[in-house]
Amino acid sequence: MTTLDFWYDFASTYSYPAAMRIEALAAKKKVALRWRPFLLGPIFVEQGWKNSPFNIYPVKGRYMWRDMVRICAREKLKLKVPDPFPQNSIHAARAAMALAPEKRAAFSKAVYHTAFAEGRDISSRAALAPILESMGLHASHVLEESARDPAKLALRMETDEAKRLGIFGAPTCVTEDGELFWGNDRIEEALAWAVDKR
Amino acid sequence: MTTLDFWYDFASTYSYPAAMRIEALAAKKKVALRWRPFLLGPIFVEQGWKNSPFNIYPVKGRYMWRDMVRICAREKLKLKVPDPFPQNSIHAARAAMALAPEKRAAFSKAVYHTAFAEGRDISSRAALAPILESMGLHASHVLEESARDPAKLALRMETDEAKRLGIFGAPTCVTEDGELFWGNDRIEEALAWAVDKR
Repeated sequence: MTTLDFWYDFASTYSYPAAMRIEALAAKKKVALRWRPFLLGPIFVEQGWKNSPFNIYPVKGRYMWRDMVRICAREKLKLKVPDPFPQNSIHAARAAMALAPEKRAAFSKAVYHTAFAEGRDISSRAALAPILESMGLHASHVLEESARDPAKLALRMETDEAKRLGIFGAPTCVTEDGELFWGNDRIEEALAWAVDKR
Repeated sequence: MTTLDFWYDFASTYSYPAAMRIEALAAKKKVALRWRPFLLGPIFVEQGWKNSPFNIYPVKGRYMWRDMVRICAREKLKLKVPDPFPQNSIHAARAAMALAPEKRAAFSKAVYHTAFAEGRDISSRAALAPILESMGLHASHVLEESARDPAKLALRMETDEAKRLGIFGAPTCVTEDGELFWGNDRIEEALAWAVDKR
C-alpha cells in the first residue's frame, strides 16, 4: 500500500476542508495517509511574512474567504471565520505530536472543526483540553506531554523536514517519490499520482 | 448563453495551459468566453512586488515550474521555460487590444505557444510580428495600432477593471454574477458556476 503524506498547519484555512475530505478519498484509492502537522509560521518568516499572507494581501484574503464559503458549501462543512485570524497553531501542533500517530487524524479534524466550523479558540492548551476530552483522552496528560521537549523537538523536526521538502504552504500532499501537490484542490491529483507510481 | 470572462496576462505561466484548454471546456458547457488580457504588473507593484512572485519566492517558483511540467504533460502541451522569465507582456497585451475581439483568442494562444511551448521572445513588437503574420493579419498595421493611444488606453482600462473586480493573479475567470475563480485548476468550477446561475 502506497503512502501519501498530508502536511497541514492548524491555522491554515484550506487545510480545514482538506482534512475533512482526504480520508474518504484516500480510502477509495487504497492509499495510506500519514498526518503530518507542521508550522507554516517559520517558513513564512523566511519569506519575509510576519502575518498570514491573506492578511498582508487583503485582496487575496477576500478571495480566499469567498472561496472557502464556496468550498465549504460544496463539502457540506460549516464555516465560521475565527477572530483573530490566524490563530496561533503551535500548541495544537505540539499536542498532535504528543499523541500516538493513529490518534492524529481524529484530533486534527476536531481541532479544525473547532477553529473553522465553530470559529472558536484553539490557540491555547486550555482551549485544546475539551477537544482531547471529547475524544476520550486524558487531556491534562496529553497537554503536559505537548509542553515537554520531545513533542516540541518532534514538531521542530517536522517543520524542518517540510522546509527541506520544499513545502511553502498548506495543505501539501507529498508522495513517496517526493512529488508535491499544494492545496486542497490538488488532493485528487496527489492520490492519482501516488497510485500511478505504486 | 451565459458569458465567462477569461482574464489573463501573457507573462503568466498558468495562463498558458488555461488558454489552451478553456475553449473546448466552455463549448461543451455552452458558455460564451470573453478573452480579456490585462497586466498583472501594476497589481503586483501595489502588493510590493517588482518581479514575479515566483522569482521573489524561489521555493514557490520551483514548485510552480514542476507543476507546469506535470500540467503540460497531462494536457499534451510542450513546455520550454522562457529566459528571462517573466517576459514583458505589455506589447502583446496592447496588440491583443488592437485586434478585433474575435481575433483575440487565436492571437493569445499563438503568443502563449511562442512564449511557453517554444520559450521564445514575445516582449517586443518585432517579436510579435511573425505571430500576427502567421494568422494572416497585417502585422505592421496591428503593431502600429497597438502603440497608439486607443489600444494603450483600452489596456489600462482593462487592468483597472481587473483591479476593481478584485483580481490579483492570472488566469482568473469571472462569471456574470461577479464570482472570481483564480487559477488554471478552477476553470471547470467557474464554468459549472456560470451554468448553474444561468
